[in-house]
Amino acid sequence: MIIVMKKGAEQKEVDAVIQWIESVGYQAHVSKGVERTIIGAIGDEREKVRLKAAEDMPGVEKVMPILQPYKLASRETKDGDTIIQIGDVAVGGPKCVVIAGPCAVENEEQLLQTAHAVKKAGASMLRGGAFKPRTSPYSFQGLGEEGLKILAKARQETGLPIVTEVMSAADVELVEAYADVLQVGTRNVQNFALLKAVGLAKKPVLLKRGMMTTLEELLMSAEYILASGNEDVMLCERGIRTFETAMRNTLDISAVPVLKEKTHLPVIVDPSHAIGKWRFVLPLAKAAVAVGADGLMVEVHPDPQHALSDGPQSLKPKKFARLMEEIESIATIVRKDGVS
Amino acid sequence: MIIVMKKGAEQKEVDAVIQWIESVGYQAHVSKGVERTIIGAIGDEREKVRLKAAEDMPGVEKVMPILQPYKLASRETKDGDTIIQIGDVAVGGPKCVVIAGPCAVENEEQLLQTAHAVKKAGASMLRGGAFKPRTSPYSFQGLGEEGLKILAKARQETGLPIVTEVMSAADVELVEAYADVLQVGTRNVQNFALLKAVGLAKKPVLLKRGMMTTLEELLMSAEYILASGNEDVMLCERGIRTFETAMRNTLDISAVPVLKEKTHLPVIVDPSHAIGKWRFVLPLAKAAVAVGADGLMVEVHPDPQHALSDGPQSLKPKKFARLMEEIESIATIVRKDGVS
Amino acid sequence: MIIVMKKGAEQKEVDAVIQWIESVGYQAHVSKGVERTIIGAIGDEREKVRLKAAEDMPGVEKVMPILQPYKLASRETKDGDTIIQIGDVAVGGPKCVVIAGPCAVENEEQLLQTAHAVKKAGASMLRGGAFKPRTSPYSFQGLGEEGLKILAKARQETGLPIVTEVMSAADVELVEAYADVLQVGTRNVQNFALLKAVGLAKKPVLLKRGMMTTLEELLMSAEYILASGNEDVMLCERGIRTFETAMRNTLDISAVPVLKEKTHLPVIVDPSHAIGKWRFVLPLAKAAVAVGADGLMVEVHPDPQHALSDGPQSLKPKKFARLMEEIESIATIVRKDGVS
Amino acid sequence: MIIVMKKGAEQKEVDAVIQWIESVGYQAHVSKGVERTIIGAIGDEREKVRLKAAEDMPGVEKVMPILQPYKLASRETKDGDTIIQIGDVAVGGPKCVVIAGPCAVENEEQLLQTAHAVKKAGASMLRGGAFKPRTSPYSFQGLGEEGLKILAKARQETGLPIVTEVMSAADVELVEAYADVLQVGTRNVQNFALLKAVGLAKKPVLLKRGMMTTLEELLMSAEYILASGNEDVMLCERGIRTFETAMRNTLDISAVPVLKEKTHLPVIVDPSHAIGKWRFVLPLAKAAVAVGADGLMVEVHPDPQHALSDGPQSLKPKKFARLMEEIESIATIVRKDGVS
Repeated sequence: MIIVMKKGAEQKEVDAVIQWIESVGYQAHVSKGVERTIIGAIGDEREKVRLKAAEDMPGVEKVMPILQPYKLASRETKDGDTIIQIGDVAVGGPKCVVIAGPCAVENEEQLLQTAHAVKKAGASMLRGGAFKPRTSPYSFQGLGEEGLKILAKARQETGLPIVTEVMSAADVELVEAYADVLQVGTRNVQNFALLKAVGLAKKPVLLKRGMMTTLEELLMSAEYILASGNEDVMLCERGIRTFETAMRNTLDISAVPVLKEKTHLPVIVDPSHAIGKWRFVLPLAKAAVAVGADGLMVEVHPDPQHALSDGPQSLKPKKFARLMEEIESIATIVRKDGVS
Repeated sequence: MIIVMKKGAEQKEVDAVIQWIESVGYQAHVSKGVERTIIGAIGDEREKVRLKAAEDMPGVEKVMPILQPYKLASRETKDGDTIIQIGDVAVGGPKCVVIAGPCAVENEEQLLQTAHAVKKAGASMLRGGAFKPRTSPYSFQGLGEEGLKILAKARQETGLPIVTEVMSAADVELVEAYADVLQVGTRNVQNFALLKAVGLAKKPVLLKRGMMTTLEELLMSAEYILASGNEDVMLCERGIRTFETAMRNTLDISAVPVLKEKTHLPVIVDPSHAIGKWRFVLPLAKAAVAVGADGLMVEVHPDPQHALSDGPQSLKPKKFARLMEEIESIATIVRKDGVS
Repeated sequence: MIIVMKKGAEQKEVDAVIQWIESVGYQAHVSKGVERTIIGAIGDEREKVRLKAAEDMPGVEKVMPILQPYKLASRETKDGDTIIQIGDVAVGGPKCVVIAGPCAVENEEQLLQTAHAVKKAGASMLRGGAFKPRTSPYSFQGLGEEGLKILAKARQETGLPIVTEVMSAADVELVEAYADVLQVGTRNVQNFALLKAVGLAKKPVLLKRGMMTTLEELLMSAEYILASGNEDVMLCERGIRTFETAMRNTLDISAVPVLKEKTHLPVIVDPSHAIGKWRFVLPLAKAAVAVGADGLMVEVHPDPQHALSDGPQSLKPKKFARLMEEIESIATIVRKDGVS
Repeated sequence: MIIVMKKGAEQKEVDAVIQWIESVGYQAHVSKGVERTIIGAIGDEREKVRLKAAEDMPGVEKVMPILQPYKLASRETKDGDTIIQIGDVAVGGPKCVVIAGPCAVENEEQLLQTAHAVKKAGASMLRGGAFKPRTSPYSFQGLGEEGLKILAKARQETGLPIVTEVMSAADVELVEAYADVLQVGTRNVQNFALLKAVGLAKKPVLLKRGMMTTLEELLMSAEYILASGNEDVMLCERGIRTFETAMRNTLDISAVPVLKEKTHLPVIVDPSHAIGKWRFVLPLAKAAVAVGADGLMVEVHPDPQHALSDGPQSLKPKKFARLMEEIESIATIVRKDGVS
């Protein structure tokens, strides 16, 4: 933290700040400029948020953090990129990984049909929700464990690892028993009880950014999981909320290179939830690959018009196959080994 | 839902939409204008979100919802205002209710001192967090059940009902055993597992708006609680996230009259979290009372500079007493019975 | 500016930054901490934005401004509040000033009728647009000079000073010939050619905040006017753009006390444009007075349903008279001399 | 417009709305549903904004526009894409066009050096500002006509057409005398006097989206130019303002395909202003080409650390040359003829 004193702050005010800094366990380092005195606080970074309280001391103009508040997620802590191995799939490695499937598991036929189709088109993992977070209590809430069993059957038939959402700390054990990757959804990005619970799980986590989560907050949420002992965290950009109403959310494509600079964790892009309309998913998928995403998450449904959720943004299997072809050629330019 | 066909849509496209509407269980009502044909879908409102899928049918320009998706929270369902009785306190009645206390319960002395001070100044309820949702895993996470016991002791000494946060469905039973009001925090506004759990509890719920929650979504979250059987829900506006960085959040003061028009539930304002700096809490509290809020939630701490969380926005007891005096005179103008 | 070096930055990198700071005309002040070296740049504050370029030098982590970039608008430059005298009206003084009138001057009858009504209800100034900025080129664009003449006639009949918008530097001379206050509209808040032109005018300026202007940017726009020689600038908060769609804009009520702390200029609130619906104007007007605004700007129209612009947010004269009564009692509590 | 009546609205309320619709010049078309009556208003679309006033009539629930308010910019009005010919360059055709150069023209040497470098790397047009919109009145404001002359000299030497900003209606004639493309800047996107003036000019216009402009508003601003007679308008996405502070602005990459669906006008992307840091410009440029942009606008400066504006986001010529190579291979995949 840097504490900037007001122009003309008196010495006794400076002294009081120094004394207070020391009283809460930090060392003070004073630097006098022509117009302002600046005081640095040195010590354990992780609890420095408390130092913001200095802002109310007489003579203080403002208090500015100078270090990012996450450690384990930071590139300062770890050299190289985290590569997460899920069966044969390596997320964060030379290939751009594609996770595909329906928003919700509706029944066995729907899921198996989709699983075979996305497998054939070249996807590496299968997604599908058994527990569905829905804005309305009257909307379809998912099949629960029945859905997990259907997912497990699809894995058995296709060999595709399963990515599925867990909505509550109480369900982690159950979902972990079936899934290969635990997804933490957008609305739970700061559900700290859930973050701690998946941090204790033995399966990798796909953490979706909230609609109004800053990149720093997203990394802090990842830090919760890492600090609980689970090192396998994938971040997922899926669109943020802005004033624009022409699309469902605004895909923050810049988040990919900015995150890749700050963290060693892999970054996935979900163009389907971002844009909300299937006919724009293809161009956004191309952009995501071009910008350097480690993977894509795409919604595919055999009959979008009768889907129980997110129909408008789901691709039919045939259009998904075309997407796989079109991104392959871009991926071979920007990554070593193309799409998987 | 209204489905607007494109200019020049063909009759067979209109027919296909009608057929599809009927296939998913609704009746279609067609209205032909000079330029456009418009088709209304009639039937169970609650699952109408599925009708958005029509947007991808040939000839369809857009699909527009015409009704709000919440029912129990709506003024259409209930006449008059919901008044929630908590001991002697009536939230939503003629008095503007003030809930005050520290962000976190730190120890017995800190809490009891604050409790007596806010009681003396005229507050009606005591707030204080035993389970603290913190952005950083390294920040103080609260005292847990120990904190709940301290809160119960403060109630015993002062008679003030206790408002405290519950962060996880698994903790509802525990928190309910001590608290008078269960608070659902900003970051859990769409933690649907938690909403269902507090919906089954026997204590009133104070539901804080998320930083990015629209008023409609907030009412949908309230609907989850109401639909689970708990009728006593207070909504709390606590600042939304915008581009402005001069304050912690942007207090959406207009939310108060707009919510009061849409719903029968009481609306509370939390100026402390909204602005993030104690010296602006007083003017915002006055504005909240003037705009018609049913209550205020204000952070008070005996020693803000050593608070374990939210020190910069906490009022000292003396300043809180002055706030109570200043809002009293405004409350007597805008409400029947002033502040309690 | 403070330049924060990366952890482990080498001495030669520090030296290079120092050398560069001096090469662009500043002095460097080095402060070595345990983990980081911090370099302050001392010199003319106003061109310091250029120092941001240091961010790309080897070993630099980030560059942080420590002073606000405006001078003349700041309380550091001027003691006390700016009070702007317009005829008998003093904006920024003990009274809360109300500016009322229609969005657009439509014809003589409409304007004179409104002028007499708002005068009778106690308003201090008359607003009305002769040049109208409209999102659509097909909407009514205002009466131009003909409208200015009608405004002048209304002033002659009622004695109310005239507030009217000027949209282009080329029109400043013309509008100044008729108006008492030159309004710079929301969409022109960073039209720097216009800001310079009104800065050279002899009439006070009412500067509306843009829908996505930060308070710092608003003060920088005021600085353009002040730096051109015009000291009489009123700032106007009129709602910002957020994700919320339940109202036209989000009234940033906190902007009032925050601006009042940063600047000596008066701050006006326009609840009509903020909320966009007349039935919420009254509670917001009360909130604005309670929070400490120096004035209000309210849209009034004798026949809102036939207004050529902004009908939905305009009050009928009778409702405006009631508003004047209700805010009077709040103003007498929060200000010395009530409403004028 | 569709006017939705409240549940249980009385027949006399419906009749009053019909009568009022007719009184303002439209025809009413009534459609009675089971729960609600819906009334369509038929007639001249362009002034329909006035119909919003119906929202205040007794029994009315809400008023919803069903058509977009722009005509000339819409694909409904014109078949095929607009291709703008500027010398040998065709914007909107099979090639992706790159406009490059410094933010500001600082002196002849700086500009000519940059011009030759970007020409050599393969850029098709030269950008450079002679009139600079700066947030601070104390920042470098541009060389004015002297800058335009330097730009003209660069065109003479390199053959590159010139893109430069015009900030005020009064300057259009002067800038038009030197420039090949008139740029309207972000902060002037709703400076309607300027839009009308460039609409009367004989040179193509590059219209930058505002930081808070919706796509619909951007198209309405384009409509101002088209309606004044100038058919050659390029739209430019350059980042919007959101809550995220990790980058200068949030590049709204989805705007490209969404705009391309709505309008026949070419869409350019400016990654430099969006991200604000040169080291992220390359990945964003690739994403913009991949998503289908008709062109890029990239800031290049021979000595970014001594640039008078926007140094941190400017590429050195060598890095720009590498960017041209890397986007070429993506462009050949997504467009017929690659980059020009």
